[in-house]
Parts: sequence; C-alpha cells; structure tokens
Amino acid sequence: MRLQHATWQEVEAYLQRSTGIIVPIGSTEQHGPNGLVGTDAICPEAIAWALGERHDVLVGPTQSLGMAQHHLAFPGTISLRPSTLAAVLRDTVDSLVRHGFTHVFFLNGHGGNIATVQAAFAEIHAERSLNGAGHEQARGALNLTLFNWFMGKRVHELAESLYGDAEGGHATPTEVSLSWFARPEAVKQVEMSPRIAPSGSAMCDAVTFRQRFPDGRMGSDPSLASVEHGERILEAGVEDAWEVYQAFIAS
Amino acid sequence: MRLQHATWQEVEAYLQRSTGIIVPIGSTEQHGPNGLVGTDAICPEAIAWALGERHDVLVGPTQSLGMAQHHLAFPGTISLRPSTLAAVLRDTVDSLVRHGFTHVFFLNGHGGNIATVQAAFAEIHAERSLNGAGHEQARGALNLTLFNWFMGKRVHELAESLYGDAEGGHATPTEVSLSWFARPEAVKQVEMSPRIAPSGSAMCDAVTFRQRFPDGRMGSDPSLASVEHGERILEAGVEDAWEVYQAFIAS
Amino acid sequence: MRLQHATWQEVEAYLQRSTGIIVPIGSTEQHGPNGLVGTDAICPEAIAWALGERHDVLVGPTQSLGMAQHHLAFPGTISLRPSTLAAVLRDTVDSLVRHGFTHVFFLNGHGGNIATVQAAFAEIHAERSLNGAGHEQARGALNLTLFNWFMGKRVHELAESLYGDAEGGHATPTEVSLSWFARPEAVKQVEMSPRIAPSGSAMCDAVTFRQRFPDGRMGSDPSLASVEHGERILEAGVEDAWEVYQAFIAS
Amino acid sequence: MRLQHATWQEVEAYLQRSTGIIVPIGSTEQHGPNGLVGTDAICPEAIAWALGERHDVLVGPTQSLGMAQHHLAFPGTISLRPSTLAAVLRDTVDSLVRHGFTHVFFLNGHGGNIATVQAAFAEIHAERSLNGAGHEQARGALNLTLFNWFMGKRVHELAESLYGDAEGGHATPTEVSLSWFARPEAVKQVEMSPRIAPSGSAMCDAVTFRQRFPDGRMGSDPSLASVEHGERILEAGVEDAWEVYQAFIAS
Amino acid sequence: MRLQHATWQEVEAYLQRSTGIIVPIGSTEQHGPNGLVGTDAICPEAIAWALGERHDVLVGPTQSLGMAQHHLAFPGTISLRPSTLAAVLRDTVDSLVRHGFTHVFFLNGHGGNIATVQAAFAEIHAERSLNGAGHEQARGALNLTLFNWFMGKRVHELAESLYGDAEGGHATPTEVSLSWFARPEAVKQVEMSPRIAPSGSAMCDAVTFRQRFPDGRMGSDPSLASVEHGERILEAGVEDAWEVYQAFIAS
Amino acid sequence: MRLQHATWQEVEAYLQRSTGIIVPIGSTEQHGPNGLVGTDAICPEAIAWALGERHDVLVGPTQSLGMAQHHLAFPGTISLRPSTLAAVLRDTVDSLVRHGFTHVFFLNGHGGNIATVQAAFAEIHAERSLNGAGHEQARGALNLTLFNWFMGKRVHELAESLYGDAEGGHATPTEVSLSWFARPEAVKQVEMSPRIAPSGSAMCDAVTFRQRFPDGRMGSDPSLASVEHGERILEAGVEDAWEVYQAFIAS
Repeated sequence: MRLQHATWQEVEAYLQRSTGIIVPIGSTEQHGPNGLVGTDAICPEAIAWALGERHDVLVGPTQSLGMAQHHLAFPGTISLRPSTLAAVLRDTVDSLVRHGFTHVFFLNGHGGNIATVQAAFAEIHAERSLNGAGHEQARGALNLTLFNWFMGKRVHELAESLYGDAEGGHATPTEVSLSWFARPEAVKQVEMSPRIAPSGSAMCDAVTFRQRFPDGRMGSDPSLASVEHGERILEAGVEDAWEVYQAFIAS
Repeated sequence: MRLQHATWQEVEAYLQRSTGIIVPIGSTEQHGPNGLVGTDAICPEAIAWALGERHDVLVGPTQSLGMAQHHLAFPGTISLRPSTLAAVLRDTVDSLVRHGFTHVFFLNGHGGNIATVQAAFAEIHAERSLNGAGHEQARGALNLTLFNWFMGKRVHELAESLYGDAEGGHATPTEVSLSWFARPEAVKQVEMSPRIAPSGSAMCDAVTFRQRFPDGRMGSDPSLASVEHGERILEAGVEDAWEVYQAFIAS
Repeated sequence: MRLQHATWQEVEAYLQRSTGIIVPIGSTEQHGPNGLVGTDAICPEAIAWALGERHDVLVGPTQSLGMAQHHLAFPGTISLRPSTLAAVLRDTVDSLVRHGFTHVFFLNGHGGNIATVQAAFAEIHAERSLNGAGHEQARGALNLTLFNWFMGKRVHELAESLYGDAEGGHATPTEVSLSWFARPEAVKQVEMSPRIAPSGSAMCDAVTFRQRFPDGRMGSDPSLASVEHGERILEAGVEDAWEVYQAFIAS
Repeated sequence: MRLQHATWQEVEAYLQRSTGIIVPIGSTEQHGPNGLVGTDAICPEAIAWALGERHDVLVGPTQSLGMAQHHLAFPGTISLRPSTLAAVLRDTVDSLVRHGFTHVFFLNGHGGNIATVQAAFAEIHAERSLNGAGHEQARGALNLTLFNWFMGKRVHELAESLYGDAEGGHATPTEVSLSWFARPEAVKQVEMSPRIAPSGSAMCDAVTFRQRFPDGRMGSDPSLASVEHGERILEAGVEDAWEVYQAFIAS
Repeated sequence: MRLQHATWQEVEAYLQRSTGIIVPIGSTEQHGPNGLVGTDAICPEAIAWALGERHDVLVGPTQSLGMAQHHLAFPGTISLRPSTLAAVLRDTVDSLVRHGFTHVFFLNGHGGNIATVQAAFAEIHAERSLNGAGHEQARGALNLTLFNWFMGKRVHELAESLYGDAEGGHATPTEVSLSWFARPEAVKQVEMSPRIAPSGSAMCDAVTFRQRFPDGRMGSDPSLASVEHGERILEAGVEDAWEVYQAFIAS
Repeated sequence: MRLQHATWQEVEAYLQRSTGIIVPIGSTEQHGPNGLVGTDAICPEAIAWALGERHDVLVGPTQSLGMAQHHLAFPGTISLRPSTLAAVLRDTVDSLVRHGFTHVFFLNGHGGNIATVQAAFAEIHAERSLNGAGHEQARGALNLTLFNWFMGKRVHELAESLYGDAEGGHATPTEVSLSWFARPEAVKQVEMSPRIAPSGSAMCDAVTFRQRFPDGRMGSDPSLASVEHGERILEAGVEDAWEVYQAFIAS
C-alpha cells in the first residue's frame, strides 16, 4: 500500500496490523552521460512500490532530495545541506511516531546519504536519551534503520556477474539499468569515453569533484546498462529488501 | 522535460534556452474519507508534468512533504515544521542558482504551505539584502514565485460551476477529482456524513483541528468528485499555470 | 491597560478577568518622502493603546522590528530575518502561555509581516502537534491570530472614500495620516514626483525593490495625508479591531 | 533625532554627518510591587530620547524584550531566549552596517541582558573573523558597545546618596524613580514588606528565583522612589551616557 | 577523581556521595611570544586536577576550545562561535543532569568565555522557565556557576605582589607561569619588545585586534614568568577554587 | 609538535613547512566494568602525540566529547548532539582554514562519531559548493579526512591475534589496553560476567542500549587487556596512522 494513495482511515486500519513503514530516500544529482538525474530516487522507489504491492506493507512518499553537494558543479543537481536533510528526517519520524509507528525503514538509493541519515537517527535518539529515561519510555519504542538497496546480497552478486570491474561507484550500470526499467521512456544511448571512468574519493567539494570526474561517472561503464538487466536487478532488490525488512520488524 | 528523467548534459543544454524551472510542491496529509493522503502533491505534479510535456519547460522533482501540522491527529499525515520546509526551499534555490537558473516557479497544491513558502522566499532574499548591494549583484538576479493551482482563474470558475457550495476548503471535490484522474487506480467510493462538512479556521493545533473537523473535510462534499471532472480540471489548471508562468518568466 | 505600565500584581489580577492580550507588531522601514520610518509600528500601537484605554484589555509592548528586507536599500530600515522574527514570536507566546494567557491577538501594521507571522504561528502549533495529543492537552488551549488594521472593513472604506486610487500599497496616505495623528511633531510636507508612485511586486531583494520604487512609495500619493484624517482613521481602526478582538476571544 | 520619526532621506543626510547610532535595549519583566513591567525599557529609552533631542544623534527603536527568563514565574514577564535576542541584535547590526553605520551604541537598562549582548557582539565579530582578513576588510570597520545606564558614574553616586543600602539589585528605587518621571501616569504607591527585600543570586530558573525573592524585589526598597528623584536621575544618566558615547565615537 | 580515568560504576558510586562536578574550560588561542596556545585550558585543568586529587571531587574532561574569535589573526588560534560553545555547554549539562548531577562548576581560564558561558547558562535555565513550573520541578534542581581562576582572591593578590603593573590582561605572567609549571617541557625564553605590551579593548574582530596588539599580548610582560612562580600560583588557585566550590555545593 | 604547547610564532613557522594538522577526536562514555570513561579520547590522543613527537607534524587539542547518546543510561557519559559536534568541527575547520591549513586529519577513537563527522565534513563542503565555483576557489583547497585508529591494518591484525573472538565492538580489550598504557595509574582489575558480553546493534536510544548491554560492553572480554599489550597496540596504531596521514597529505 502506498501512503500517497491511501485515505487516513486506511492508514488507521493498517496500524492495527502493523506499525512498520518503508520510506524510499534518494537524491537528485547528475548520473553521468546516460544516467538520469533522478536515478537515486527512482531505484529505491521502484523496489519499495513492488514491496508495497506484493506484501502488505505501507510505503511513504519518496524523499527525492538528498545530500549531493559534491555533484553541484553539474547542472541539474539539487542538494540539501546535511543539516536540512536531518531536519526533514526528524520531522518525518516525529510525525510517524505520533501515529503509533514504531519501525521506520528508510530504503536508500544514494551512498552520499548514508552518513547524514545515520547522524540524523542519532540526533533523534539523542533527544530522547538526553531527556532521561522517563521521557524515552513515555514516547514509546522507536526503531530506525537504513537499508541501501545497492548493497544487498543478491543485488551485489548480480552486479558482479553482469558488470564485474565496470560496475564502479557512481552512475553504475546497475542503477542505470534499474532506473531504465522503471522509466523505459527515459533510456538514453550514449558512448562513454573513456569506457571506464576514473576512480577516487567523493569526499570533497563540487569543483574538486568535477576535476576528478569530468563526466560525472566514478569508475563505471554505464553503457552496459539495459532495461532487461533492470528487471532482474529489481527482483534481486525486492528480495534483498524484503528479507532485511522482515528481520527489522521482528527486532 | 522532467529533471528526474534528464541527464546533466540535457539540463546544460536547456539552460542555453531558458533559465526558468517549475517545482511542484504539495503535502502528505489526510484528505477526508475518499481523498488520498498524497492529493496535494499529486495535483500540482500532474499539472507540472503536463506543462513539461506540452511546452519546453523543465520540471523539478515534487516536494511531497509540506506544512501540515494541523492534520497530525489523522493517521498518515507527515508534516515538516515550517522552519524545515524553509530550509528545504533555501537549499533547492541555492542549488538552482548555482547552475544559472534565475526564475523558480513553485506550483503549489496546499493552502497550508503558502505562508511558509512566502516566508522562505523572504529569508532567501533577506540573506542577499542584508549582505549589501555588492553581494546581491554578484549573485545575480533571482525571481521566486508561488502559484496555487487551485486559485487559478479557470480552475476557480470550473469548480464553481461543478460544485458550488459543496467545494469547501479542504478535501474539496476539485482536488479529489484531479488526483483521481492522475491516479485512477486509487479512486474510492465513500458516503459522506454529513454531506457537507463543517467550516471553520485551520489555524490551530492538531487536536483542536480534529475536534472541529471530525472526518478531516472542511466545508466540502468530495463525494461529488469524478475522474471525468478531474480531466477537465487538469486542462483548466494547465492553462492557468502556463499563463502565469509565461508572465513570470517575462518579468 | 498597558503591560509596560502595570505591575505584576496588576497582571495577576487581570488574568482573573481575562486571558486575552493584544500585541502590536510593526516594522522599522522607509515610508517614502514624507512617511516616518516608524509608521508601521506607530499605527497599530496607537490603535492598541486606544483599545487598552477604552476597554479593559491588556496591551503588550510593541514589536517595532519586522520583516522589511526588501526596504534595506533605503537608509534607516532595520529588518529581522523571517526566522528571527519567528523566534521572537515563539518566545513571546511561550512566555504568555506560562502565565495562563490563552488568546494572543497580534495587531499588525505591516503587510510584509503577514506570511512570517503566520508561519511562526504554524511553527508554534507544530511543536505541540508533533509532540502528540497528550502534550497538546497538557499545555492547554492556545489561540493565536493576526489582524492587519489596514485591512479592516471601516478603515478600508474610509481610505477608499478619502484617497481612491491614490491609496496605493506602501507609504499610503492612510498610514501616514494615522502616524501623523499619533506623532504630530513629526509631520513633514514634501512634494511627490510623480504624484502617484509606480506599482509592482515587493517580493524581491532590496536592490531590485529600489529599482522598481525609486523613492520608496508603491502606488500611493501620501501628500494627501493629514493629521485630521489620521484622527478619523484611528477611530475606524479602533472599531474594526475591537470587533475582531471580541470575536476572537469568544472563539 | 529619533529614527522612528525620521524619513529615509533624513537618515541619508544624517549619515553624512555621523555614522553612529544609539539603540535603547531593555526588558519586559516584573519589577516588584510598585515598579512597572516596562521599567528596564522605559529608563534607557528616556535617556536616549533626551540625548537625541539635545545632541544631533540618531536614536533607534527601543528593543523592549530582553533576557528575563528568571522572572517568568511572575505574571507579565516576557522573555526572549538568549539565542533569540542574539539573533535580533545580529539582524539589527547587519541592517545598520548595510547603510554605512560604523558605531552602534546599545544603551541598556537590564543587568540580565549584559552577558547575552556581549555574546551576541562576539558572534557578530566571529562571523567576520572566521571568514578571513579579506572578508573583514571588505565589510568595513564595525564598533559595537554596550553601556548600562545604571552603572554610570553620576547615576551611581546619586543612587548612593539618595538610597544607600536600600538601592538593592532589582526593582531599585533609582530605576523606579526614573520610570515614574518618564511615565508619571503610572506611579503606584505600595507598602513594602519587608522594607528591604532579600538579596541573592539571580542565576537560576524562574521557580527558584521566585522562591528566593517572593515579591520580585532583590535587596531594594523602591517605596523610596519619587518622580522628583527621577528627574535628577535622568539628568545624571544623560550626562553619563553622552560622555561615554562621545568617547566611543572617537574610538 | 578524574571522570576520564573512572569507570561508570565508580561514577555511580560517587553520585551517592556527591552530585557536584568540576568542568575545566579554556581556550586554544595565541598567548604572545612565550605563552602557549593551550594556556587557557592548561591552567584551569591543572587546578581542577589538583582539586580532584586532594579532595573527593569529580573532574570532567577539559573543554579546550572556547570563544577566541578576536585572536584569529594569529596562527594556531581555534575559536568556537559563541552559539557553538553554548550548544556544547547545553549538551554537557543535559548529560550530567540525566545522571543526577545538580551542581556543575565550570572552572574557567579565559576571560573571553565569560559572557558566552553566562548566556549559555541563561539559555539552559530559559528552556526550563519557559516550559512552566511543572516542567522545572520534574527536571529537578539545577545549579550552574562559572569561576574564573585568575580572578580568585589569593591569585589576584599573588599576581599583584609578583608582577604589579606588568600583569596586564592577556598573556599575563601569571597564566604563563602556571602553564609552565604544568608543562615544564614547553617553557620558552623570549625577549619582549616593548617590555610591556599596549592596553586596550578586545571587543572587536580579529584584524582590528592584531592591529591593536601586534604580538598578541595585552598590557603584560610575560618574560617575568617562571616555573617556580607557577607552583605558587597553582597553590593559590587551588585554595581559591576549593573555597568557592564548597560554598557553591552548599547553596 | 603539540599545538597546545606551541606559540603562535611556532605555528606560523610550521605553516611554512606544512599545511597539515592532526586533530584527535574521541568521546566521554562508559567503557564497561574496567574501561575508562575517557578511553575513546585517550587512545587517539596517545597515537597523535607519538606522531607529533616522532615526525614533524602538528597535533591539535583533543576533542574529548563526541556522539555518545546511546551510552547515556550509564553514569559518567557526556554526549554532544550530532548537530553540536558538527558545529564544533565546522568552527575548528573554519579557524584552521583561516590560518592556511589545507589538510585536516581527524584521528578518531569512537565508532559512534563516524557518521556525524562525515556528515559534518559534507556540511562544510556544501557551504562552499552551494555558494558557487568562484566562492570555492576564493577559499582555497580544503581536504578533510577521518581515520579510525581501531580500524587500521596493523591494529586490526594485532587485535585479531591477541584476542580473537573476545575483541567485540565496544569496551574492547584493544582499546582498554591502549588506554591503560597511556594512563597506567588508572588500570582496574575487574571480573567479567559473562566473560564475553552480548552482541547487537547500538543504533538505538539510551534505555534500549542498556537493556541490550547491561554492563556496557558489546561482545568483548576486556579482562584480557594489559599495559604490555597497550604498548604494542600503540606502536601498531602509530604506524597505521602515519602511513595514512602521509598518503592524505600527498593527495
């Protein structure tokens, strides 16, 4: 069930069955010559929607803006400051807690979000912990987790078998394939030069990033991507995420 | 052109033709017994995507979370604090300005966002104004505007003719119709009781709001909504928004 | 009764009779060639003080600084950032709530404050709403409203009859008249050129605003202002505000 | 010259003669059984207005709200958080710097403001210092100072001679006298019991403060206050402040 | 007992005996030609550690970074913004309160910290005071104080007798002596020119400060410092601080 | 060279040779029955000081407070909120950049800091990236990195060979050994029960953490720790850190 397509009464009924929710989170940032600016949001959203259809699990609206400051020298990138993203996550969790949700599962599509999301979780927990044991208990249990679909076991093995060394770290053929399967109308055929992009660290500002990675790719050859691969990657991602989600809910 | 479906090179090319962009902004909040939690995001998104297809205008990712604190006593509502929403808008505008955008047109679907979005614009302008004339000029011209699709001339007339007194102020048949046209799989048939919901002020906290408006509707009878109406409303909304957007870009 | 002229024991006694308070809020900003920098604070203050004298209602200290970033290219303007003004309002309301006030009526003299004040109200309510129903109830009822004296029914009709098209939107003869009646020692006689100033939008930064409105007026001819008009405008404003205040307290 | 009574052209002309300004800053807080809630704002305002009339110096609008958290257990007190007051001062100074003011002289009426105002000055300077020498020089010289009228040499001697041990630390006969001279309509005759209030530290929260100081006075007997004393205190305060202001401007 | 060298069980046992703690706070900033960048942290730390060894009092970790913005034109200075330091103090106090500490004694080595630390205390108290009497009582008593070791009675007399007019206000022989006694491996012999540095105000930005005080000293001749003096100063400081701490705990 | 023991002239001279600096960062938190509350700060500090003595590298003051919210149910823990720690890091880096440092190497002793430190780096870079290419270039190159001494290659191998499965994740024998070598006066002999503590996730609030880990250890048996082991661990840590630091400076 997608939250955006539900009425409040349907959510009320869902909360009788489950207090868990999946929230897709991505980024709006360049993905090289043939990857979509929305790749990092489209991919986890596709997996989350499939989970919502196949299993009785609620899926919140996709957080399309993430922490993408290092991509800002490429047109089209929109980045939140880490502190802004943390505030968005805090308000989202505060809202869900008010309704009785106890397990919030962020399904993430962007490596650059990981540190900020984890720091945001710590900020939320810290507010409880600093206010004392009574406060924590009054507000009820709260479980927060982040799952990066591109690091799931099945997805990792499939990417390895399909692309090997050409997978790289950003604008990968794996994510490009999945985004194309989810948005077939947006497939682009572009030659890559060099075939495999340079590798390096992304922990720098935007000007430095573009100097290191002139066309935006990091270590990848996304010309290997295809819609057909995307379908297989989706299936692997759905299985990975469902397994992890079930273990989370049971915790 | 949708930003999420473009490559950065396509955005770079677009910026040669235009420095304007449309960003849909909505809310994730209860919309009564037959309205979708995502109504306020789905409606401006539908209009924006139609504009992006019919005219050569870039459409950014939808900001699905808005200022909905008064709806928080109804399950499913997710609200940003006004200060959080303002930070999201500031970072969005800062990112777009870096790429050379000069006109950012927020296409809004939620009355509760209006004050916060305007205050956020003032905060962005204030940063420039307080730093002096030299600073303002160095950063280039910046034009920000908010257009509420549900207040457009054609939409207003159509709503009046279709629903008259049953239009109301929240969970209106107009927005429900449009959201259903955009998401026909999510149509719900629910009896309303009373037929027209009570009216009143929404400037209060969540508990008070729910006391005033027990099923979430304000002054409306959304059982009058239909997919067919939604299609006509979309057309009116697209015409309204395009007219206003063109005037904005010319300013 | 003016809060600044009361002792705490007098306030304690007042709270037995009423839990409502009026807080004037204005701005410190240029008002064209013959208008005072303090106009927007002086006007609502004059109306509020008259209410405090004629009726048994408590009047708080005037918030003289408002959101005036667009006027900063004119010497003398002092603007708060919207986030700063929101913090001032939050602390003011938090203080009043602690004493048992339940109805805070901001009597506003500046159009540029409206969005920020409403966003600040939403931030205050959001803190309660996000913390859950128990929290809201523990803190007691809270009613906040903003009344713009220059938009009151009687004031509007009087301005229309006195000035017609020369009223304009900023540095209007109505507000200049009222400020002169309140501060007769500060009356200035200045020729206006052109007689009626240009019109346009004020949602921009300071440099742009001054380009659009070279002497600071927007669409007005304040050379029509007079102390005698000011007295009549004050009476109209007092009647408008009292009517709205009484309805607010009854809510 | 009072800023609130000037036009922007008059301020523009003033800036040709001087780039200094006096800003009165006080508090809105209980002042014992016969002292006014507005005492701390009324006193420096009265001195500043006299300076503005006698000398060609610009006087900004009074900041009536200060840091008064420890008085919040007495009805009528309105306190800003220190961080809010610091933001107000930062925005005030940023606005004045934009117009070319180089010397901002805060004339303070409340001991509880001192630390916060000095910390706010440091925050303003820190922003320049952390941004590097080039940044500091580009923004021009900036001189900020705080003068506490009740600590001036002449005022101190006069208080000593008039009240001796009955002066105390809060709700003093000196400040009550001055406020009564400025607002003779608000004089209150109240018996004090005990005649001299208990002494102690005010660095605590509101509940503790009221336990220590049951009627709000600290070590004082304000029943000794009189309008006639107030006039002499005003003269002493004006001389003190003018001497210090002149030295500041010359620095 | 030093907190850093204790186990949590030892702290738990300590809390049965006492709910007081000493936290040294200093700064990391230039101290002239022969003074250490760490002087302001090393000095209160040395006194606090001696107290911890001689008396059964817990000593927290030293806060080495303080408010040093005016020293930033000298290499090696690291300054926190006042708002950052206030947040550090708030979180420190919140943590200690959670464990049951009721008296937190900040032993300070830097004049530039005083206003910020006091404003931070007020911010902490304000949070309680603005939330109402019930909230304050639920959170328990909280006593916060700041003691500046260099202003203690015995230290002051000793400095006067040892250095007279050469003591000055920054990079004083008193603090240099104490830091050398604490860190004898870091003693530096440097000629001072002029022997006594110029005096003046430090309330300015970094560029201005360096113009006023070219080698970083303010009014002092720290070439008079010695390790042997440092030992006597430590003893005086320990006696001063212990006396004040005992009175604080008894309050 | 330790910054705290240097004069500003010595730092100025150092900057001619190198623009790199090492800043130890830890935490103040429970470390089980025999581990010190200061373990996470003491360990990286010991390694950094050894580097400073053996190589010509500047070592800043240790940041002793980190992100330890999950340990707050154990007395003695002091935690910064993630947002506070990020502000401390921003101000530290801003200060160092002003002096011309280009490479800041945080030597970290606490796993709980990792996400927050990386998010803080991103916030610092974002400020540059959002302000545009010109701004970034004007402020000069900036390289920030985090090295976790306990994850170094040599340390990892040594821990594996010394403790195998008893190493665990918090209050490990490796860190306890190193802290004891650095502080031999603080060695504690305590029996562990059970010998190896339970394992699990630390991403939760303080009450939950203590339920999962009753004596504070996570998966470890720190009774295996010894001063002699600590010496070997220090050597391994120094070699690991020096190797990584040199590569960082060369980047």
